[in-house]
Amino acid sequence: MDSAEAITVPWSCLSLYNTKIIIEYNGTRFFGWGIQPDRVTIQGEIEKALEKITGDKITLIGAGRTDAGVHATGQVANFATQSKMNAGIIAKALNANLPCDIRIVDAQDVDYDFHSRFSAKSKLYVYNVLFGRYVPAFLKDFVYGVFQAINVDDMNRAAEELIGEHDFSSFCIVDGMTGKNFTRKIISLKIEERDVSIYPLQYDQRFCKVVSFSIRANGFLYKMVRGIAGTLLDVGRGRITHEDVKNILDAKDRRLAGPNVPGRGLCLVNVEY
Amino acid sequence: MDSAEAITVPWSCLSLYNTKIIIEYNGTRFFGWGIQPDRVTIQGEIEKALEKITGDKITLIGAGRTDAGVHATGQVANFATQSKMNAGIIAKALNANLPCDIRIVDAQDVDYDFHSRFSAKSKLYVYNVLFGRYVPAFLKDFVYGVFQAINVDDMNRAAEELIGEHDFSSFCIVDGMTGKNFTRKIISLKIEERDVSIYPLQYDQRFCKVVSFSIRANGFLYKMVRGIAGTLLDVGRGRITHEDVKNILDAKDRRLAGPNVPGRGLCLVNVEY
Repeated sequence: MDSAEAITVPWSCLSLYNTKIIIEYNGTRFFGWGIQPDRVTIQGEIEKALEKITGDKITLIGAGRTDAGVHATGQVANFATQSKMNAGIIAKALNANLPCDIRIVDAQDVDYDFHSRFSAKSKLYVYNVLFGRYVPAFLKDFVYGVFQAINVDDMNRAAEELIGEHDFSSFCIVDGMTGKNFTRKIISLKIEERDVSIYPLQYDQRFCKVVSFSIRANGFLYKMVRGIAGTLLDVGRGRITHEDVKNILDAKDRRLAGPNVPGRGLCLVNVEY
Repeated sequence: MDSAEAITVPWSCLSLYNTKIIIEYNGTRFFGWGIQPDRVTIQGEIEKALEKITGDKITLIGAGRTDAGVHATGQVANFATQSKMNAGIIAKALNANLPCDIRIVDAQDVDYDFHSRFSAKSKLYVYNVLFGRYVPAFLKDFVYGVFQAINVDDMNRAAEELIGEHDFSSFCIVDGMTGKNFTRKIISLKIEERDVSIYPLQYDQRFCKVVSFSIRANGFLYKMVRGIAGTLLDVGRGRITHEDVKNILDAKDRRLAGPNVPGRGLCLVNVEY
């Protein structure tokens, strides 16, 4: 691909500008972040808009490759451009050319060596589970709905087993990844129950119970948050204990952990550099 | 239509049950509440589901006929049925057969003479305007976005001119409605600015400014809330004054009022009986 070549040339040699953008998106109708032939993706839509406004084929580097249905309020990406447009103008022009479910929140010129993925110190993902009789019409794309009560204290106790630096092979997709390093450091992992208004504008007086998993790590393996959330939910439902979670982690065997919960409950909240 | 005939027969003669349901819906992909040939409507979807679970063609009576793109968190409807299913079971069965953007919040058996529209004492609608540089990806279907600052105090001052019983011809669609009574009583009309989380689950720390118009009246004319919100926005932007609003009301001439604002900002919050 032409666009891929552009990025292999050291940017500084071409005196290109390096622009960092913060992006929010409702992932519902997209096939995830990463570009795919004949599929509507976030990266694909933004690259198309960038080509329209700069005239160049540009490759966008995203901090996190979110899956289909996964949302972001603070995705970060960067790209090299020869365009002398100021970053604020680029943000405005992108928003004018992007579908309304992808918005550029901010844009700024950064150093040549800034790389949205490799420079990231940590990322925060939140996974939302709704507990109730039914899933409200306005929240259906943002939660995984469960009908049984969940014990949050038990889940927090089990979460402690996962905090720190570990090999997380048991909690990610390992197929076709022989030789890959599965060690990551979970900096924080907290589960909280909150009352959430059923309407996005928080006007309505009706609330529902949402259990949110907030997980910050120095990096994430493929489907790691969803594997961890699914396993901790098994703890919350009383199917397994925190000791089981410790054993699953130690076994380094994906078959032992709980199921991956659906993508729609997940949101990339921010990336720290 | 067969289904319409069913409702003209006095229900008590047939010893039918009268069931009241509370409905919430995300109106984005619907052509409004009222059934229309070859269009996806809320009433149409619920009647289809009712036929599926009871075997009968049933006509649903809605409290408010919301337009395309308009949402509801507390729409009320009722229907007559010969089915002896208990109301709670009907709610569950409906939710199992409805698309996820329409949810039955509650169902109960009510007296024969309960009519969701005619028995209503008042309805509360809220119209949401977002003020900011851009409309967040997650709120795009729920707000009308404006870029200029709006003066909320001026709007509340002008709103006072409209509170009470008046002929609201200046604020609704009057075409083809000769002889209709345009008098309605606005019980309360309040405009507030609020900080709203950009994410529906209110997790994110980023907020945006939303101006909400809450309007309760004993009844609403066609596009009345949107005509009033559009006119009061003109006040908030300094284009007209509260005295102008008084004059517009007195003139009973739709051409003098402000534009109708888009349906997506509107939500039917509740109906009182």
